[in-house]
Amino acid sequence: MEKKTSQEVWERARRIKMLIMDVDGVLTDGCIILGSKGEELKNFYVQDGQGIDLARRKGLILVLVSGRRSKVVERRAEELKISEVYQGVSLKIEVYHKVLKKYGLKNEEVAYIGDDLGDIPPLRKAGLALAPANGVEGVKGIVHYVTRGPGGKGAVREVIDMILKAKEA
Amino acid sequence: MEKKTSQEVWERARRIKMLIMDVDGVLTDGCIILGSKGEELKNFYVQDGQGIDLARRKGLILVLVSGRRSKVVERRAEELKISEVYQGVSLKIEVYHKVLKKYGLKNEEVAYIGDDLGDIPPLRKAGLALAPANGVEGVKGIVHYVTRGPGGKGAVREVIDMILKAKEA
Amino acid sequence: MEKKTSQEVWERARRIKMLIMDVDGVLTDGCIILGSKGEELKNFYVQDGQGIDLARRKGLILVLVSGRRSKVVERRAEELKISEVYQGVSLKIEVYHKVLKKYGLKNEEVAYIGDDLGDIPPLRKAGLALAPANGVEGVKGIVHYVTRGPGGKGAVREVIDMILKAKEA
Amino acid sequence: MEKKTSQEVWERARRIKMLIMDVDGVLTDGCIILGSKGEELKNFYVQDGQGIDLARRKGLILVLVSGRRSKVVERRAEELKISEVYQGVSLKIEVYHKVLKKYGLKNEEVAYIGDDLGDIPPLRKAGLALAPANGVEGVKGIVHYVTRGPGGKGAVREVIDMILKAKEA
Repeated sequence: MEKKTSQEVWERARRIKMLIMDVDGVLTDGCIILGSKGEELKNFYVQDGQGIDLARRKGLILVLVSGRRSKVVERRAEELKISEVYQGVSLKIEVYHKVLKKYGLKNEEVAYIGDDLGDIPPLRKAGLALAPANGVEGVKGIVHYVTRGPGGKGAVREVIDMILKAKEA
Repeated sequence: MEKKTSQEVWERARRIKMLIMDVDGVLTDGCIILGSKGEELKNFYVQDGQGIDLARRKGLILVLVSGRRSKVVERRAEELKISEVYQGVSLKIEVYHKVLKKYGLKNEEVAYIGDDLGDIPPLRKAGLALAPANGVEGVKGIVHYVTRGPGGKGAVREVIDMILKAKEA
Repeated sequence: MEKKTSQEVWERARRIKMLIMDVDGVLTDGCIILGSKGEELKNFYVQDGQGIDLARRKGLILVLVSGRRSKVVERRAEELKISEVYQGVSLKIEVYHKVLKKYGLKNEEVAYIGDDLGDIPPLRKAGLALAPANGVEGVKGIVHYVTRGPGGKGAVREVIDMILKAKEA
Repeated sequence: MEKKTSQEVWERARRIKMLIMDVDGVLTDGCIILGSKGEELKNFYVQDGQGIDLARRKGLILVLVSGRRSKVVERRAEELKISEVYQGVSLKIEVYHKVLKKYGLKNEEVAYIGDDLGDIPPLRKAGLALAPANGVEGVKGIVHYVTRGPGGKGAVREVIDMILKAKEA
């Protein structure tokens, strides 16, 4: 998959009806914060949340998919009113196929953002493949667009702003 | 609204009697830290707190306004002795009008600092409209001044230092 | 107080027998982390702790002074075996005079590191006055040396390494 | 020990069968997060965890060694299925010798990554000596390779990727 020009990214963004997001390193900064009393915490970002809120109201279907499993992700998903949440997923491509089928969507109608090797199979399928600035090299090398901001600090907001602008243009 | 020269910003700062502050991304770094045991945490900054303390003692009226709702904000407000705290606000412009009326102030006597789209209506009214370095483009493009430091790491202190200096000059 | 050349800083460092440290923004990154369940957290840095451990073993007297009051500081002080801990201090200069008297030290034998306006009175007295990179301008302008690293990320380690090297030379 | 060319680092990486990792400042960002209710937290990084998972499956022996002692490290080790965990270690060189003997390995088969002075003795022995970008100068000056990323934000992943690539080449 070769790098696309910004015009091509724009064309791809216009067709998007669903955004599938990896969680750690994308919707968070990748920190796994562990405490001595068994607690686990994650850093989300208020501007990403505002973007997700806007996307939802504009009718974009939002999906979270994570290789790990954490109550924190459930809490954040509830807060953002995202109902499609898949955790403890070993093969993300299976979730990818499942949600496309459920909503009757084609690859070109789906954007996927992920930061690590486990995200490569769905990234190779998605109509718009995205990585945050902090993505590993193997992932950043195959996507259509790498966000300027890092995960958990605006990467998701940047993606949503791009998709909504492209669709409104 | 076109960008003002620093002289104009200074003139605007001299007239300020009230500073209204958005919370997430302004008084904090925008991180929404969620834990597996139901806890929510926010990062505030000690130097911002010192600035607020100084501003209060110099007679500046301080107001917090947040689209979200969190006990943490109440705690920080108590610590900083800020009594005007409005949370879970969907239309910030309503709070803006309410506090101006309550204190009998005109637009030119009010400074407002915010980082996201929901802050735009009051930013368009305030005599001194401010955004932190981490504000979204749509907001940074319409304010009189963008702080050098980001929210939760000195943006509020920078604003207070500017207002107090302008008033003392 | 004019800026000193590095030779002068070195000469000052050689005479130091006590290091007085502000806490928030110096031994921490200045974050006041507040939680919805009443918890308060602070970020300390492992390399600063190692430096303090080394300084203690070399016989340097270590003092913590904070304008705020927090159980967290007590915990960190215990861990680092610092017994001179003063919290909730409104006038830091009083603690400064008190510890100098207690240990029979002169100004030139004392180093003080602080980041905000409340630290200025003791900084004006100390034989070696220091600020972390994140110090406010009013403080960085009057000290003998501003560390390259910020508070809570190596500022204290840098100071201790400098003092110990100067004393051993 | 003089700096090695990247060819030499590569040759050293090819022979590695065991990776010994310091914890604070290497597998974490060095933050010691303390709370008012007795909690202690650490920041780990999801991409480092993915790298460790990959390394384990490729047969690399993984060891954690820490001068401090924390339940959090036990939790992260369990999650990453690392069974060789040594905490509260005052002389890391003793753990170094112990694990080499236990697995019948020679110095040239062992990589060690550490950030502070206590790591120097094992770093002087290991076939591949590594420091994260945030390592203290005294450590960065004696290792074969300093990672581009800091501890707790990709340093360990970078090391594992390098070792696995060198071994597969």
